[in-house]
Amino acid sequence: MLKKLAEEKVFRDPLYGYIKIEYQIILELIDSSEFQRLRRIRQLGGNSIVFHTAEHSRFSHSLGAYELARRVIKDVSDVRLALSDYEQLLLMLSALLHDIGHGPFSHIFETVLNFDHENKGIEIILSETTGINKVLNKYKKSLAQDVAGIIGKKGVFPLVESLISSQLDIDRLDYMERDYYNSGAVYGHIDVERIIRVMKVHNQQICFKESGVRAIEHYLMSRYQMYFQVYYHQASRSYELIIVHLFKRYVDLLNKDYKFKTNHQVLMKLVNNMSLEAFLKTDDCRILTIFADFCEEDDDILKNLADALLNRKLFACLEDTAANKNKIEKIKANFSDEERKYYTGYSFVSQTLYKSERFLPGKILILENDKLVPIDKYSKIILSLEASASQTDRKFFYRKNSEIKR
Amino acid sequence: MLKKLAEEKVFRDPLYGYIKIEYQIILELIDSSEFQRLRRIRQLGGNSIVFHTAEHSRFSHSLGAYELARRVIKDVSDVRLALSDYEQLLLMLSALLHDIGHGPFSHIFETVLNFDHENKGIEIILSETTGINKVLNKYKKSLAQDVAGIIGKKGVFPLVESLISSQLDIDRLDYMERDYYNSGAVYGHIDVERIIRVMKVHNQQICFKESGVRAIEHYLMSRYQMYFQVYYHQASRSYELIIVHLFKRYVDLLNKDYKFKTNHQVLMKLVNNMSLEAFLKTDDCRILTIFADFCEEDDDILKNLADALLNRKLFACLEDTAANKNKIEKIKANFSDEERKYYTGYSFVSQTLYKSERFLPGKILILENDKLVPIDKYSKIILSLEASASQTDRKFFYRKNSEIKR
Amino acid sequence: MLKKLAEEKVFRDPLYGYIKIEYQIILELIDSSEFQRLRRIRQLGGNSIVFHTAEHSRFSHSLGAYELARRVIKDVSDVRLALSDYEQLLLMLSALLHDIGHGPFSHIFETVLNFDHENKGIEIILSETTGINKVLNKYKKSLAQDVAGIIGKKGVFPLVESLISSQLDIDRLDYMERDYYNSGAVYGHIDVERIIRVMKVHNQQICFKESGVRAIEHYLMSRYQMYFQVYYHQASRSYELIIVHLFKRYVDLLNKDYKFKTNHQVLMKLVNNMSLEAFLKTDDCRILTIFADFCEEDDDILKNLADALLNRKLFACLEDTAANKNKIEKIKANFSDEERKYYTGYSFVSQTLYKSERFLPGKILILENDKLVPIDKYSKIILSLEASASQTDRKFFYRKNSEIKR
Amino acid sequence: MLKKLAEEKVFRDPLYGYIKIEYQIILELIDSSEFQRLRRIRQLGGNSIVFHTAEHSRFSHSLGAYELARRVIKDVSDVRLALSDYEQLLLMLSALLHDIGHGPFSHIFETVLNFDHENKGIEIILSETTGINKVLNKYKKSLAQDVAGIIGKKGVFPLVESLISSQLDIDRLDYMERDYYNSGAVYGHIDVERIIRVMKVHNQQICFKESGVRAIEHYLMSRYQMYFQVYYHQASRSYELIIVHLFKRYVDLLNKDYKFKTNHQVLMKLVNNMSLEAFLKTDDCRILTIFADFCEEDDDILKNLADALLNRKLFACLEDTAANKNKIEKIKANFSDEERKYYTGYSFVSQTLYKSERFLPGKILILENDKLVPIDKYSKIILSLEASASQTDRKFFYRKNSEIKR
Repeated sequence: MLKKLAEEKVFRDPLYGYIKIEYQIILELIDSSEFQRLRRIRQLGGNSIVFHTAEHSRFSHSLGAYELARRVIKDVSDVRLALSDYEQLLLMLSALLHDIGHGPFSHIFETVLNFDHENKGIEIILSETTGINKVLNKYKKSLAQDVAGIIGKKGVFPLVESLISSQLDIDRLDYMERDYYNSGAVYGHIDVERIIRVMKVHNQQICFKESGVRAIEHYLMSRYQMYFQVYYHQASRSYELIIVHLFKRYVDLLNKDYKFKTNHQVLMKLVNNMSLEAFLKTDDCRILTIFADFCEEDDDILKNLADALLNRKLFACLEDTAANKNKIEKIKANFSDEERKYYTGYSFVSQTLYKSERFLPGKILILENDKLVPIDKYSKIILSLEASASQTDRKFFYRKNSEIKR
Repeated sequence: MLKKLAEEKVFRDPLYGYIKIEYQIILELIDSSEFQRLRRIRQLGGNSIVFHTAEHSRFSHSLGAYELARRVIKDVSDVRLALSDYEQLLLMLSALLHDIGHGPFSHIFETVLNFDHENKGIEIILSETTGINKVLNKYKKSLAQDVAGIIGKKGVFPLVESLISSQLDIDRLDYMERDYYNSGAVYGHIDVERIIRVMKVHNQQICFKESGVRAIEHYLMSRYQMYFQVYYHQASRSYELIIVHLFKRYVDLLNKDYKFKTNHQVLMKLVNNMSLEAFLKTDDCRILTIFADFCEEDDDILKNLADALLNRKLFACLEDTAANKNKIEKIKANFSDEERKYYTGYSFVSQTLYKSERFLPGKILILENDKLVPIDKYSKIILSLEASASQTDRKFFYRKNSEIKR
Repeated sequence: MLKKLAEEKVFRDPLYGYIKIEYQIILELIDSSEFQRLRRIRQLGGNSIVFHTAEHSRFSHSLGAYELARRVIKDVSDVRLALSDYEQLLLMLSALLHDIGHGPFSHIFETVLNFDHENKGIEIILSETTGINKVLNKYKKSLAQDVAGIIGKKGVFPLVESLISSQLDIDRLDYMERDYYNSGAVYGHIDVERIIRVMKVHNQQICFKESGVRAIEHYLMSRYQMYFQVYYHQASRSYELIIVHLFKRYVDLLNKDYKFKTNHQVLMKLVNNMSLEAFLKTDDCRILTIFADFCEEDDDILKNLADALLNRKLFACLEDTAANKNKIEKIKANFSDEERKYYTGYSFVSQTLYKSERFLPGKILILENDKLVPIDKYSKIILSLEASASQTDRKFFYRKNSEIKR
Repeated sequence: MLKKLAEEKVFRDPLYGYIKIEYQIILELIDSSEFQRLRRIRQLGGNSIVFHTAEHSRFSHSLGAYELARRVIKDVSDVRLALSDYEQLLLMLSALLHDIGHGPFSHIFETVLNFDHENKGIEIILSETTGINKVLNKYKKSLAQDVAGIIGKKGVFPLVESLISSQLDIDRLDYMERDYYNSGAVYGHIDVERIIRVMKVHNQQICFKESGVRAIEHYLMSRYQMYFQVYYHQASRSYELIIVHLFKRYVDLLNKDYKFKTNHQVLMKLVNNMSLEAFLKTDDCRILTIFADFCEEDDDILKNLADALLNRKLFACLEDTAANKNKIEKIKANFSDEERKYYTGYSFVSQTLYKSERFLPGKILILENDKLVPIDKYSKIILSLEASASQTDRKFFYRKNSEIKR
């Protein structure tokens, strides 16, 4: 089944030196139009408005996750022995395709259009119309179903699933280090090689050697730093709120039968029925082009929000505290009822935006003389990271007259 | 004239740590829509098809060039003393705006649409309709004219001009190191700080200390490596040829009054009269969205070329040598006359694609006891780099049936 | 007083690029024989037995500390404004000379010979016989006294003192990053530049901007990692114990009037009266040469310990826990009474070896709206680092017959 | 024969992450006193007087060379297939032991004492009195003879020999990168991993893939930079000349039956008959301690030269050109006849100091369709490096009255 390439293909990569493709099927999946589409979707969505060099795509991250899967199989003998040849293939394919269902602007797009990138990915993999499905089917009947099952966490291949998605998985290792490298963040570097070196498998569960506790502390500390520096950055949250409100205005205008000058068919189809065909035409480029055209619409609110988005006229920000209550009320009072809906809003950094289990490092397991022990038994530092991260941060955002907040 | 910001603004940057904005005018220029548009134009155009992580934008490069201008003023006392306050400002502004006239796909776009990014930049700076012009005018009447003059090399501010554009200038220092960082190229690292440290001014000319000869050798060697590894990479040249042919087909269809299903107004305006308004609506996003829609046109050639472009179905390649003459003729004969026009072509790496003076390192000047001496007097290595680079590389490209060449 | 050099002198340095000497007096101090002696004393003493590349000297560290002092003056305007020209000079001189009183093997040597490197440093600076004293006196009468006062923490120049020695000082910044660089430790990198950038002075106290909290967390986390990886490494502690016992044996033999074949005058003088002249002849080279000659003495214990030291025949190790009590007693019983004194021993990582306040990061101050707040108010992570570090680690070491423990 | 360790031992290394020891015999050789002695011999001898952080030892380099041998076997399938298990072991052992015959101060010591570190290494390996010989013999009778044969280039194992010593060998790869890392040199970084990746074996000769030409150009360029920056640095050459003259004076005093106060037995034995026993007692420590004691001798010239050496009172320098002829003669005339012998001298960078073939990169072979082609056929740059390096640099050095030249 696994046809090896006559000569392995390589992609240069600043993180790993080379990404190596050894199998024909991997190459064919990369060359599918659904996968190539990931070149046109930025990994960090709104964050590049703040970290201007964080311009890397989901294509780069997906190749990176694949490469880590390949290395885990090659370098961690426990994993290699625990997985059959077929499961090893599944691991590489799932790593490659785990983000295939993402649209532009990351989780914000999911919130706004009420979909889930994992389910969308499963749809892409299983739909007979996609190039990806055709490639998978050509090689083996069960393949599409099994890869989709892993992404959807059906529990059939638990070890593969936990390597793709858990507290310390291939996905995170790649995106954290890649986001760090591209954002120019001060802290956040992860020693991926070192973490792979201390991986073990015990009772079909991924765990880590005792000698790796320090490495995992370092990984979690870096993660903590990345969240505060990059992912939760106030300006990114301002940008995300503007997207949410721009969509809200667009949908409200659709419902009012507003006549658009812009060619917005694909977006309308997404809103109306989220068809797969429309979804696969959706990338940063198309959405940003539509938003650019919105800047010339007659509706002021739509126009202003699109302009704010494209030209970085970010909303200003106040901590949502008791002390600021009056100030916030006054600001709100300055807007008309309609404007207030679109020009003000709240952002809570917590379960709403990022899934809660992102901050449960305690679930990482250490192998101690044949027993699996949660890492927080080893390290007060990890306990305190967990506590620090669970705090909710509440902010109020609003459009300042003509002022560009940085 | 130079209003300092109450508190300096910083942008994180992986190359320089921080890019610092000290003046209000710089911030306002960055926030203009013409400058923000550079976020949506990739620096390396077609190269990211090969070096998948080379996804950085002209926005990042332009900020980087500005930062180097700021550092040269701050760290090179010769430059600081040789330039008036006004000229120092001109240097920073010109560095920031030197690429403002670029469209998508770099020089290929210029070839295809027959324009020049420097003249287009001057038009943007001088046109009263642009945000940039308004900002410049607000501060001082002569400013737009003077910045445009530097970009157009009018010779009024020769020292500033040579810092912006010469054999070893701020522009190259930033783009080479940035391209290196993002492409994951093996060699090509430049020690920017070190080169700035050995800069001097003599008789109003930029030159370098004798103790810097080794640093310049290293810079030129890195440049040589970048050209061979990245800029001249065969797959990039294949990609560029496809763009050229896709445009040719598009223009030919326009002339035949072909009825497009695609919304292609902006592109048509560019072809017809290159209006500034249309140009400023043009970025990677809009062009790639048009190309994506071309994939659903009825014209097979247009459709195939657009698909090749978006989904990386690169043309195959042969060295254009006497030995391959027959082979090439046979391949050509396999195409219909019409197809041959679009599905085959030649690429010469030489003056056509890259301006010849890119490879005249000998013109870099060394200050030797009060005399300026061209660097090639110092270094056989530099002479040989010049000779190595002057060789023309000729390649023949063609569409392989259904085959995807990597 | 401060004679500037006609041309600044530079030392290449892998951490800082260049160490710059701007003043004649600094150069003269570096060229004194007391300072050149630091070239022959390794910074990490016994640690290079484990981290074989940690071969760097106190000379490198002292130059590095000087360079950081220079940069703090140059880059932190608060410090520059708070210090007079004379105090700025004192800061650079104290940084340069703060370790001038160290002997070989770091703190172990102090324990064994019952002296204190700071007092010894003061003696060197104040004694009229030293080159350092002569240089200082030549420039200004009070200089030697003032530098010595800073090293001895007399409180006359409190701000300078706290920059040289506190929870987050120039000394630590350099040695931690330098130890990290040379040891090849996995974690432990410190962003020195970033920490300097967030330094402030308030009420004549060093403090840090609120925006620097993350940077300090990162610094403390790195410090924690360095302690566990490098400074407290079990093999280093084994090595240190062997030195202690070798000295004990040497002194016991001296007291018994044992006839040495070795030329051990300098060492004897150190033991007998710790004369400055003998001290200044003492460096790693002389001591290791004496130990090498001890390998040919007739006394078995002295010979064996010297051999263990030079040829890395480290003592084996057991945790000193209740569970190991019997095991440890059995091991001890295997030795004769005399051997037991020299071939077994305990090491507690705690106040004995490292001064307790090393682990009081909470004393680092943050400037919050004109108020100084200890950093542990900001960060649960820092609280937990403090708690983690306060645990005492107790180990029992013993000589294994002919076995070389790694 | 090859007993694997139950658990592999690792040494942390800043260049390679980890140095891995898989076999018992390697560990035993490292633990021999002859190998541990390398800890006390600096790799770069006099260069650390200029590049103060270049304090690394031959111990680190020897471990590094071993690690590269291990990696070449593991990662280059051509090498693995071309060598029997026994030859693979020989490769690792020879890499580990190739510098075992070095004394202090590198090649200068060889010149002064008229020996050759390779022959001395062979003597150490073959002499029945050494720990190294005992370990080798224990494992296999022929082992000592075969390792010595490789170091002496007897031609029995030509492939192993060329991996240990040729234009692009394991020895150079490690020392160049290690010297670069520790010296803080600006240029000189080598991508060791990349070079190993392009290694091939053809007709029992080491060669390189065509795709590796750029990598080798880069390696040679780095080598060229290291020679000019570090190895040929004027101050290092001044230091080396002082050592040569100090030895000359010492020998002249020996011949005159001068009565030394210093304990100089070991040195005298070296001069008199170069006994192995004396040689193995010789390391930087012992020699520097003797030199330190020379500072208190009555003979002025000996005293002054020893002081110059220890306290960096370097000789001044002039280019030995026709233009400087008179100046040089005048300087010489200022010295008495006896002083002139010791206080002035010439240094030619050329065959005398560095073996000529160090600069014959043209001999590196490229595999081009089953044919071996010297690399200078591929690259004008390499030709010019060869030409640049063949120039002889002649300098005159002299002691300046009381002046300390930097």
